[in-house]
Amino acid sequence: MKNFMDKDFLLSTETSQKLFHEYAEHMPIVDYHCHINPQEIAEDKKFDNITQVWLGGDHYKWRQMRSNGVDEYYITGEATDWEKFEKWAETLEMAIGNPLYHWSHLELQRYFGYTGHLSKETAEEVWNLCNEKLQQDDMTVRNIIRKSKVKLICTTDDPVDDLKWHKIIAEDDTFNVQVLPAWRPDKAMNLEKPDYVDYIKTLSDVSGVEVKSFTDLKEALLKRIEFFDSMGCSVSDHALEYIMYAPASEEKIEEIFKKSLNKEAITREEEMMFKTAFMQFAGKTYHKKNWVMQIHYGCKRDNNKLMYDRLGPDTGYDCINNYAPSAETADFLNSLIATDELPKTILYSLNPNDNEAIGTILGCFQGTEAAGKIQQGSAWWFNDHKQGMINQLTSLANLGLLGNFIGMLTDSRSFLSYTRHEYFRRILCEMIGEWVENGEYPADYKVLEKIVSGISYHNAVKYFGFDL
Amino acid sequence: MKNFMDKDFLLSTETSQKLFHEYAEHMPIVDYHCHINPQEIAEDKKFDNITQVWLGGDHYKWRQMRSNGVDEYYITGEATDWEKFEKWAETLEMAIGNPLYHWSHLELQRYFGYTGHLSKETAEEVWNLCNEKLQQDDMTVRNIIRKSKVKLICTTDDPVDDLKWHKIIAEDDTFNVQVLPAWRPDKAMNLEKPDYVDYIKTLSDVSGVEVKSFTDLKEALLKRIEFFDSMGCSVSDHALEYIMYAPASEEKIEEIFKKSLNKEAITREEEMMFKTAFMQFAGKTYHKKNWVMQIHYGCKRDNNKLMYDRLGPDTGYDCINNYAPSAETADFLNSLIATDELPKTILYSLNPNDNEAIGTILGCFQGTEAAGKIQQGSAWWFNDHKQGMINQLTSLANLGLLGNFIGMLTDSRSFLSYTRHEYFRRILCEMIGEWVENGEYPADYKVLEKIVSGISYHNAVKYFGFDL
Amino acid sequence: MKNFMDKDFLLSTETSQKLFHEYAEHMPIVDYHCHINPQEIAEDKKFDNITQVWLGGDHYKWRQMRSNGVDEYYITGEATDWEKFEKWAETLEMAIGNPLYHWSHLELQRYFGYTGHLSKETAEEVWNLCNEKLQQDDMTVRNIIRKSKVKLICTTDDPVDDLKWHKIIAEDDTFNVQVLPAWRPDKAMNLEKPDYVDYIKTLSDVSGVEVKSFTDLKEALLKRIEFFDSMGCSVSDHALEYIMYAPASEEKIEEIFKKSLNKEAITREEEMMFKTAFMQFAGKTYHKKNWVMQIHYGCKRDNNKLMYDRLGPDTGYDCINNYAPSAETADFLNSLIATDELPKTILYSLNPNDNEAIGTILGCFQGTEAAGKIQQGSAWWFNDHKQGMINQLTSLANLGLLGNFIGMLTDSRSFLSYTRHEYFRRILCEMIGEWVENGEYPADYKVLEKIVSGISYHNAVKYFGFDL
Repeated sequence: MKNFMDKDFLLSTETSQKLFHEYAEHMPIVDYHCHINPQEIAEDKKFDNITQVWLGGDHYKWRQMRSNGVDEYYITGEATDWEKFEKWAETLEMAIGNPLYHWSHLELQRYFGYTGHLSKETAEEVWNLCNEKLQQDDMTVRNIIRKSKVKLICTTDDPVDDLKWHKIIAEDDTFNVQVLPAWRPDKAMNLEKPDYVDYIKTLSDVSGVEVKSFTDLKEALLKRIEFFDSMGCSVSDHALEYIMYAPASEEKIEEIFKKSLNKEAITREEEMMFKTAFMQFAGKTYHKKNWVMQIHYGCKRDNNKLMYDRLGPDTGYDCINNYAPSAETADFLNSLIATDELPKTILYSLNPNDNEAIGTILGCFQGTEAAGKIQQGSAWWFNDHKQGMINQLTSLANLGLLGNFIGMLTDSRSFLSYTRHEYFRRILCEMIGEWVENGEYPADYKVLEKIVSGISYHNAVKYFGFDL
Repeated sequence: MKNFMDKDFLLSTETSQKLFHEYAEHMPIVDYHCHINPQEIAEDKKFDNITQVWLGGDHYKWRQMRSNGVDEYYITGEATDWEKFEKWAETLEMAIGNPLYHWSHLELQRYFGYTGHLSKETAEEVWNLCNEKLQQDDMTVRNIIRKSKVKLICTTDDPVDDLKWHKIIAEDDTFNVQVLPAWRPDKAMNLEKPDYVDYIKTLSDVSGVEVKSFTDLKEALLKRIEFFDSMGCSVSDHALEYIMYAPASEEKIEEIFKKSLNKEAITREEEMMFKTAFMQFAGKTYHKKNWVMQIHYGCKRDNNKLMYDRLGPDTGYDCINNYAPSAETADFLNSLIATDELPKTILYSLNPNDNEAIGTILGCFQGTEAAGKIQQGSAWWFNDHKQGMINQLTSLANLGLLGNFIGMLTDSRSFLSYTRHEYFRRILCEMIGEWVENGEYPADYKVLEKIVSGISYHNAVKYFGFDL
Repeated sequence: MKNFMDKDFLLSTETSQKLFHEYAEHMPIVDYHCHINPQEIAEDKKFDNITQVWLGGDHYKWRQMRSNGVDEYYITGEATDWEKFEKWAETLEMAIGNPLYHWSHLELQRYFGYTGHLSKETAEEVWNLCNEKLQQDDMTVRNIIRKSKVKLICTTDDPVDDLKWHKIIAEDDTFNVQVLPAWRPDKAMNLEKPDYVDYIKTLSDVSGVEVKSFTDLKEALLKRIEFFDSMGCSVSDHALEYIMYAPASEEKIEEIFKKSLNKEAITREEEMMFKTAFMQFAGKTYHKKNWVMQIHYGCKRDNNKLMYDRLGPDTGYDCINNYAPSAETADFLNSLIATDELPKTILYSLNPNDNEAIGTILGCFQGTEAAGKIQQGSAWWFNDHKQGMINQLTSLANLGLLGNFIGMLTDSRSFLSYTRHEYFRRILCEMIGEWVENGEYPADYKVLEKIVSGISYHNAVKYFGFDL
């Protein structure tokens, strides 16, 4: 029996261990997609206790507590931080096989030096230990980032954002990790939302372009893209229900947009037409700028009206939307490549059943701009666990060139979650190590090093063109 | 090489073996969903021969015989019981990797003491051995149930059923296994069926409520729910094509229902509206009564017209229906939780691709009424095999708290199929044992016992609130 | 650690090794579905160099080169054969875990005696070795087929084909491998295509039936079916988007067909009606002739307009189409069995998520004409890798009788790809061997031999009724 999460955690063969300890483990981190708050980096935030870090905004953990029948009082309610932590410790015991079990213990090991396991019985010991460590200077946000060997972070930012905190960080000589904005213009696209007109007004103000037509909207966004670009941005991100393809004439799009500005009802069909046009504009613009287009899809959000009314959005009530016709995905990308205006693209679906369809779509649109110009993103959100990663990596390997994969990202709001890169690298090395041990790939360590260190770090640097 | 299906069948590690032999193996059985006939328990039926038990009504086996090119004469036709058994033995040889191979041999081992393997060559030996045993007193239906350590059985019953046999069993002091009815009101919902009006007439008679409107229908069903409740029922079950959400006004529902009583055609859209309203009524009522709502979906039934005309329904001609939009499932549950009227719910899809969508839906609707208030049911019907169970358990573990899972049920018409609980427990212990051996979960046997015995037995008892 | 792709490649247990080396390895090959050109057999073609064999028309390899960022100049362009080969060698290094890695090395081992691994470094050595071997007499097309132990090949042919090369091969006493045509009437069905009317004209000419109505079309096709039948054909093949079921009256079908002949627009709904009627005619005719109906579906073709305009169809720009309602598949087959006119049928979906739905559909339509009358085809195209085969075989075993599976085919344009049968047999023997080692199936070698040699060879011979 192996020890619980020891140095060879998830590494069952000598080759896997060698690949991880010699090549993967020491590579720096490029976290090209996350949701951390740049202000907290700028201000070099410190945390009072482990509940703040772990349970302050992490709806992954909230969901599991609710699954354990825990009252909301102990989750997002008025209970003390210690009470909340204790409830979390009880919940975690039941989370056998869940990635949170592994992530939590990786964080306890790497950042707090705790090698036991958290349970109701050890909760107090862990609480005291963590809180003590959190008082130390090496546990400020910047020091956590530094000790995690992070070289570059892309945050997620709205077109109207002034990127103030990014500026402050960039100008601060004492911190040499790059913190770049990423462009997420969902609010400019989602014309079916009640606050769309307000958003467009803000965008008009910020961009200096009064948006009265779709043409204006594109002009306003272009101005903001230029600004983001000047701030070092080269990555975009879109959240879509699914990747739709509903082509329409320019006149029709203008008509839909105007209806929407007038707060007139638009049909579902019109919504899809507008979003198709929006995404085509976005894709073509990114192609011109040599930006990367990330598309996340397959999520249905805010499914619990009772709790939405109490807690608002992004509080742990999302699920997989399994409607995502691969034909429309292909048609959308084809509409960009037809005129040779398809940017580097990364596709993420929340539905793991989409792995293979995506894998075959990638192969239709590759190009010479980059090895693996069209990528499938790493196993996302609900798939971000051992089996989900194995499935995504296996599908990639079966259908394309795993060696060109740009690898892991945290997609996280937390500064402790860089251990997810470690988790990913262990799983990657285990898989490749097993192939080698099994005679399915030669023990050619020159190539293996290239593949493993590439997926861990170099491929992403090269793909995005980061200057490191 | 391990011996064929010996005591450590499916248990490859010491930890797996320990978990099974020390915790899981000896737990009693709560079979909270099955299709056995309570009359056969009441009358303590005895079987003449193994063909009666195995091939009398088991369309799982019939399908495999047809897949082997066997003529219907030897399946549901006029051949002798011996001839049918021999054809089954020949078929079973080819069923390598099929759960029927394992189930059949578990039944031969546990109930008949036969440890060889059934094939054309051993068919006569097995036939004689089984038939001899079946003459013994310990092989009556009640004794089979007793020796299987079954504590409680939920049958599946129509609202118009008088539950006569349940009464007889409950009043019989010589048999202390609880045999409770479960409420399955599909016939009251399926207004598209040709015999719907007849059914409504019967329901009117039985309930004493003359059903002329949807309001009447609800009243009639409430009366029957009260009756079932008085008979110890706390579990419902619904078979749906998919979990639909097509909201409509009360007036519209009344209009649809009246058309249907007048045998006027209704549209597919109207059918979905009516069924949505029916299910909302059902769910809210269960919430009031603290009943559990089970929903089975994803099946397309009776797909062979040639054989349907000869043999009727439920004779082995069903398949997976892969249309099941997760968005509608979420919207339906949301429509119940919006007013805080969502009951404890168990979702089963026949399509294994739905595992992950279901796993993410569960997490949106949990509550304090029970740990794991919203559950995914155990791998159902066509998924009820080693890989299907591993997939369902892994998905549960990845997305929620496996420790709160309420575990296995037989869903069977046969009194020998309690060995499926053993099969499930072996697979469960193998999975968890591997995690522990692999350092993915600590060897903390206090918690492991809680998890394993919980999933095997205690969780279900607690979840349903059975009085044992 | 095992050696790279040695004699026990993919065979990890003694039982797996025994099953492969004693039963599977030496069985002949029946390649019942492929796309090789019979002219090349008739003329006993020789190849100048390995690029001609490997990269001449293999869009599997082209896709991977594009995924590696290789310029089209080195793929389908003007680069020299050596330059192309070198780019392929560099690409292959990155294809860790990809079936092309294994296929390429199996071909190098079996046909060229090369046991190293191809990479940028060894490219020149491999190039020289292969090209030298290709000059030898035992590397003509016929000798490759002979040394691969191929007994029978079914090509893929259009109804208007004169089957000239098949005749020449059949009459040639010096070559005793059967090369039979297979009937692929897609062009006669796809009335939405721009060249449909031209095709119908050619069919009229070739069949001698002037096609002015759907009735005429059926008559013309029947004549061609008789001709194909006289040439030894007993296998058909259809490529469908999905298996649709849109029944319509004969009058409606005639009306749609006439519109189409007049080059009038038809709706998507009409297209589906026509195709349903076409497929029903086809199925019923095959039933009369005792032909096998193969249906391949789930593909969306030619998704890159930029490259389509340069290279045309079938050049590596296809992807999975994930729209395939299982309900329509079942309804279509039901419409044939209702009148007892369902032929032997093999279903292939490009979407691996369809495995289980297909597995349950098979079981609804079996019959006495053959053991496993309705089959799922071997893991197809994008699924034709280790994991894809394991998934398909496991699903078959879970849901039906694996022992009756008719096994592998190459689906290839290349004469070196017979090693894919070896690849498949290794995976099959590994799976079954593991079950036996694990105590899940008895070590009854009489039955195991029957199963393994059956799936490798005998089942297909018997199923198709080939005369060998």
